[in-house]
Amino acid sequence: MDERIREHAAVLVEWSARIEEGDDVVVDVAEGAHDMAVAVAEKLGSVGANVVTTYGSDEVARAYLRAHDGAFETASHELALLENADAYLRLGGGRNTTATADVDPDVRQAYSTATSEIREARMDTDWVSTVHPTRSLAQQAGMAYEEYQTFVYNAVLRDWESLAEEMAELKTILDDGSEVRILKDRPDQPKTDVRMSIEGRTAVNSAASVAYDSHNLPSGEVFTAPYGTNGEVFFDVPMTINARRVRDARLVFEDGEVVEFAAAEGEDVIESVLETDSGARRLGELGIGMNRGIDRVTDNILFDEKMGDTVHLALGRAYDANLPEGESGNESAVHVDLITDMSEHSRIEVDGNVIQRNGVFRFEDGFEG
Amino acid sequence: MDERIREHAAVLVEWSARIEEGDDVVVDVAEGAHDMAVAVAEKLGSVGANVVTTYGSDEVARAYLRAHDGAFETASHELALLENADAYLRLGGGRNTTATADVDPDVRQAYSTATSEIREARMDTDWVSTVHPTRSLAQQAGMAYEEYQTFVYNAVLRDWESLAEEMAELKTILDDGSEVRILKDRPDQPKTDVRMSIEGRTAVNSAASVAYDSHNLPSGEVFTAPYGTNGEVFFDVPMTINARRVRDARLVFEDGEVVEFAAAEGEDVIESVLETDSGARRLGELGIGMNRGIDRVTDNILFDEKMGDTVHLALGRAYDANLPEGESGNESAVHVDLITDMSEHSRIEVDGNVIQRNGVFRFEDGFEG
Repeated sequence: MDERIREHAAVLVEWSARIEEGDDVVVDVAEGAHDMAVAVAEKLGSVGANVVTTYGSDEVARAYLRAHDGAFETASHELALLENADAYLRLGGGRNTTATADVDPDVRQAYSTATSEIREARMDTDWVSTVHPTRSLAQQAGMAYEEYQTFVYNAVLRDWESLAEEMAELKTILDDGSEVRILKDRPDQPKTDVRMSIEGRTAVNSAASVAYDSHNLPSGEVFTAPYGTNGEVFFDVPMTINARRVRDARLVFEDGEVVEFAAAEGEDVIESVLETDSGARRLGELGIGMNRGIDRVTDNILFDEKMGDTVHLALGRAYDANLPEGESGNESAVHVDLITDMSEHSRIEVDGNVIQRNGVFRFEDGFEG
Repeated sequence: MDERIREHAAVLVEWSARIEEGDDVVVDVAEGAHDMAVAVAEKLGSVGANVVTTYGSDEVARAYLRAHDGAFETASHELALLENADAYLRLGGGRNTTATADVDPDVRQAYSTATSEIREARMDTDWVSTVHPTRSLAQQAGMAYEEYQTFVYNAVLRDWESLAEEMAELKTILDDGSEVRILKDRPDQPKTDVRMSIEGRTAVNSAASVAYDSHNLPSGEVFTAPYGTNGEVFFDVPMTINARRVRDARLVFEDGEVVEFAAAEGEDVIESVLETDSGARRLGELGIGMNRGIDRVTDNILFDEKMGDTVHLALGRAYDANLPEGESGNESAVHVDLITDMSEHSRIEVDGNVIQRNGVFRFEDGFEG
């Protein structure tokens, strides 16, 4: 076995999920993630955790969903499994990223709605989502297999402790701030100039560990839950949303809501997201990518949104971790991220002070805000 | 997809497990059983069952067991999953039948002991065990892959209703009988002549359906729980027991207990089975194979013990279904089947009446008992 798989498993179990002896852990294994499942099982065995391994196969899900009449109900056994679990480790990495492309979106939505209680139980555990590099993901990224493996391990096998310290500086700025403004003025693009309130919200230092309320591996972003957004944003990082390509999307906000949208490709996808529910027209997240191990777009949100020198905004659901205790933020059935590159002609301001210019943070460079 | 996989899935879900709308089903998928998992998910979706798919990987189990210190405990989340499940479908079919060969037998035993509550919860569901034909199982059987697929589907895709009726005749004979005697006198073998009491015991018509207290697909045997065994038996069907070859085993019984044993190969395996506990020296099962779709030994107990014209005796644990309500039969941590061919020079008698001669039953042939 490639030693990097074991290192990945060690980061997942020790740094990310903080698994301890006696913990009841669910490991969900995608079709192509067998080798990593073996490495994770080895690590969990040595820690002395109790393990249930589930099979997260897209082809199995497709067959089930296509055959079902759509009247789903909560599976009591699945709920019981998750309510009794301390941690849930999702090992992504399928064999075909479009394996469920021919599932009726209404059926998919009905299943998602019917299983919300199960999803909540899962999110009440110390859950962490990661991916094992597969040929399918390499293909989605437009990369050779070995090249993609190197990309993934560069993103995952970082000095997380040191990155967490760096991100803490940005968190402090956002926690103390009231308004964020994002500006970009590239001559070849529609301009970006958007302001949003973050007063009273708490930023998450997403250091790829449940100890930081961070549930993705890799991570490496600081995110918060903005509101009252005004202005326009051009998203120049291409994405796949609901198995469809979206390129060069542009959103215009007034008083927190999207009032205008366009895209060079996939405009109808944006439209269907916005029409999901009223919360889908508002932002649930502002995230600032800080993982410089991720140095290119690979059409996988787990990586793209953490890329150094990027900002992403998500339409839909806000995360509780950003909100004051007991307060609920923007609610929606969706959470769809859109990303823009900040490496050139751009800046981020907090309360009028420049905190990042062309991808370089004030605390890195020491420039005056 | 090979249409036989879908037919297999239909037999499993409809005939064997009797799954109904709203049932909470666990499907456990071995490493090589992906295609069957897809077919089963399709069938369960069309029935409207709720599904959790677990990954029954031998390599994952090996990694976990080898890394663990051996102080296992009951996994509360796994227990909760099974206690809330209506049915459990095991889709066997790995990629290497010796994948766990280097796991310390003591660790394996410790795990088995620590998880007995989970095993009981599983056996309280409508559980069914089947296998998807894989290259690994073909190899174990000494067969080509396509040849093995044909073998498996011949065994599985039977007219179960009609076989169930035929087996019911044998069940009636055993239920009414007090003593079974098995005789074989092949000139090239040590003789077999063993008697056992079945008074008060109920035979199971194992027609591959939970509706018949039968949990294997394929099945096709009638079995009961004998006691007070006396005599000697020569087992001429070779077996793999605990990943070791056992050939030409011979057991001698006195007052229900093994008092002498020998084997041409794997004698120490028999010895270690017998030494497990006191129940391991007594019989837990007498089974009579009646599935003539199984016409050869494939070194897989799921098939071998149901082969037409064979008898098997199991050392160890008896099944509750054979016992009067509330009575417990032979108890043991093991249940190890040994098989003998009855197609020549042999007969089975119940209370002195011949019920089978050279593999042909009285009710088939009409001969006088």
